[in-house]
Amino acid sequence: MLIVQKYGGSSLADAKKIHSVARRIARSRDEGNSVIVVVSAMGDTTDELIGLANQISERPDARELDVLLSTGELVSCTLMAMALRTMGYASVSLSGAQAGIRTDSSYGRARIAGVSPERIISEVDKGNIVIVAGFQGITEDLDITTLGRGGSDTTAVAIAAGVEADRCEVYTDVDGIYTADPRLVPKARKLDEVGFEEMLELASYGAKMNPRSIEMGMHYNVPILVASSFTDAKGTLIHGDIEMNSNVGEIRNRVRGIATDTNVAKITVLGVIDRPGIAASLFEPLANADISVDVIVQNASVDGTTDMTFTVTRTDLARALEVVEPVVKELGSRGTVSDEGLAKLSIVGSGMQDAPGYASQMFRSLASRGINIDAITTSEIRITCLISESQIAEAACTLHDAFRLDMPLDMPQE
Amino acid sequence: MLIVQKYGGSSLADAKKIHSVARRIARSRDEGNSVIVVVSAMGDTTDELIGLANQISERPDARELDVLLSTGELVSCTLMAMALRTMGYASVSLSGAQAGIRTDSSYGRARIAGVSPERIISEVDKGNIVIVAGFQGITEDLDITTLGRGGSDTTAVAIAAGVEADRCEVYTDVDGIYTADPRLVPKARKLDEVGFEEMLELASYGAKMNPRSIEMGMHYNVPILVASSFTDAKGTLIHGDIEMNSNVGEIRNRVRGIATDTNVAKITVLGVIDRPGIAASLFEPLANADISVDVIVQNASVDGTTDMTFTVTRTDLARALEVVEPVVKELGSRGTVSDEGLAKLSIVGSGMQDAPGYASQMFRSLASRGINIDAITTSEIRITCLISESQIAEAACTLHDAFRLDMPLDMPQE
Repeated sequence: MLIVQKYGGSSLADAKKIHSVARRIARSRDEGNSVIVVVSAMGDTTDELIGLANQISERPDARELDVLLSTGELVSCTLMAMALRTMGYASVSLSGAQAGIRTDSSYGRARIAGVSPERIISEVDKGNIVIVAGFQGITEDLDITTLGRGGSDTTAVAIAAGVEADRCEVYTDVDGIYTADPRLVPKARKLDEVGFEEMLELASYGAKMNPRSIEMGMHYNVPILVASSFTDAKGTLIHGDIEMNSNVGEIRNRVRGIATDTNVAKITVLGVIDRPGIAASLFEPLANADISVDVIVQNASVDGTTDMTFTVTRTDLARALEVVEPVVKELGSRGTVSDEGLAKLSIVGSGMQDAPGYASQMFRSLASRGINIDAITTSEIRITCLISESQIAEAACTLHDAFRLDMPLDMPQE
Repeated sequence: MLIVQKYGGSSLADAKKIHSVARRIARSRDEGNSVIVVVSAMGDTTDELIGLANQISERPDARELDVLLSTGELVSCTLMAMALRTMGYASVSLSGAQAGIRTDSSYGRARIAGVSPERIISEVDKGNIVIVAGFQGITEDLDITTLGRGGSDTTAVAIAAGVEADRCEVYTDVDGIYTADPRLVPKARKLDEVGFEEMLELASYGAKMNPRSIEMGMHYNVPILVASSFTDAKGTLIHGDIEMNSNVGEIRNRVRGIATDTNVAKITVLGVIDRPGIAASLFEPLANADISVDVIVQNASVDGTTDMTFTVTRTDLARALEVVEPVVKELGSRGTVSDEGLAKLSIVGSGMQDAPGYASQMFRSLASRGINIDAITTSEIRITCLISESQIAEAACTLHDAFRLDMPLDMPQE
């Protein structure tokens, strides 16, 4: 098999861990596979480099920062290649540029525009285990870019797509994808498999994988195994044909997992004059400031005015208020109130769209515990409630029980 | 003027020093110059990276090690560009590859094969202060190489030649080239100017500049100013037309400086059968093992056998003995003796070749202090004596006085 493996920074934090990962890579090679490995920077290197940049400048130039940050992965990929060579395995490291990772020029959060895998393939054909620096690429102008937090996941999946690998394996410090965050829900159970779209909702709402990597896996149909780099536990396979594997049909439990997110703040703009275009005049400046707005609720109009509520990440709150403040005056609003004590709670499952009753069961379960719902949004495969952060653990446990997520998914639900 | 400046690692050891160097660069820009800057890695970064590699492997792969080491200069060049931008100066960093530094593929000590300065020139034309990562280049196969210790000097001079700069300025932790090592000779005086060939001998024999950079400056006739990055002292200009500047002719003191080197060990191969080819059979294996042999003395043959004495750097001694040991047996020698307690003492001056008496004055001065000479070698512009290391300071002071090096060079000598 042709396999792409990805190892995160915590798996590469020191020389001992690098050797340990090298042994895992060698084992896959010994099993007869051709192996391409994508590595993140060692441990906290990226944060340390950002700290260094901030010593030089409060607002480091984005192009320069990307070159600086890209060095973290260069270090780890060369060390991994050295470790494998020391063990007697032919190995070669490649930078993102050498590996043919082409991106746009959005420094700090570049998108992969394509992969030119010729060099990787030629090195694999020579019998080398190829170690690629994750998180980085190169623009048309040959300038270095980085892909943003978790970008090495995307590098791995993009390469797997580019070389038509049989599988992409993402090794991390957890042993797979869980039905819920185990820190909140002690009964959380590791999933054997999960669909791309489901994973996308789980990833966007707390679980640790870069959403872009999942989108790319879905687009190019690259199965992704998420597993621990420290144990040999089985992991979770993210793939596209999950529903076809199910032979229990209608009666199958269609809630795959519960996503939670406490990096949430709410802003309410009070007494906005209710006329067409107010949403645009509020949200366009936020988009221009690169602030993502999530749940949006507009109350029914009373006396020609309405309250607009929306959420942003807690880390964006101060900046969002700065952007909104001048607009609010133009809209004739009485001002804004904000609340940081909120959390998002979602149930996720690709089958939910075809079956009614999930939403009502969710609301009923929360109500039975006296948990107040502040706002609700839904997608085809997700229902999200905004609740008080202080109740997030209780709420997640309640839903985990209600949807019987402690039971394997292919067990029929009563 | 179009100026290339180079700053060494000790000038860039922390954020404060980087800001301080940035102000110096900005000042040169403010004076109306176009400025290209070559930087080394911050402080002890290179040694730290080597330490990291040695944690992974006792013998790190040379190709991988070069990528690893090249990250040190990437970090410092991005930080410098950030610092300049923060001060309001347009600036851009370039890696060795982006700067067009093409090398052969001798990892760890690559030679610059050429400079393709298009990108540098286009960035200068845009008004940018261009910061180039020193010490690194790229092979035809787009693999990263490093140039060996002091390689950033060579990068700077090569770029100055490539862009036809008016001058290359090398800023370091000393304020110029001295008539002798001031730690040994308290009366040592800073030179205002020195010839390329003289500098080459001074550099090869102790003073701190990469000899290749001097050769390159000589070949392309790039004047090089060596000065302190911490003070505004005038520095030393290394250039080619130094003799023409002299108008004191015959009576000028032609000894420019005294070079000393204590990284010297001597090996004597005893009782070698004296026949053609013995030198080759001894020195070829050393050359193959990449060990430089310096002073070579062959004693007059007695009874058909002779003693061969040669020097290597002290750091190469153990390895040199390993290489020589098996050869010695084949040569019918009685064995080897080695001595680490030696030093090289040289007088250097481009005018010496035309005027007799320098050697005899040197030997007489040393003899007057009871300093024994172990061996002698000469080049056109240098006379070198091998002496006991314990006497090196006294010997250097004696010659410094004898050749009146405490007096400015253009003062006539009695």
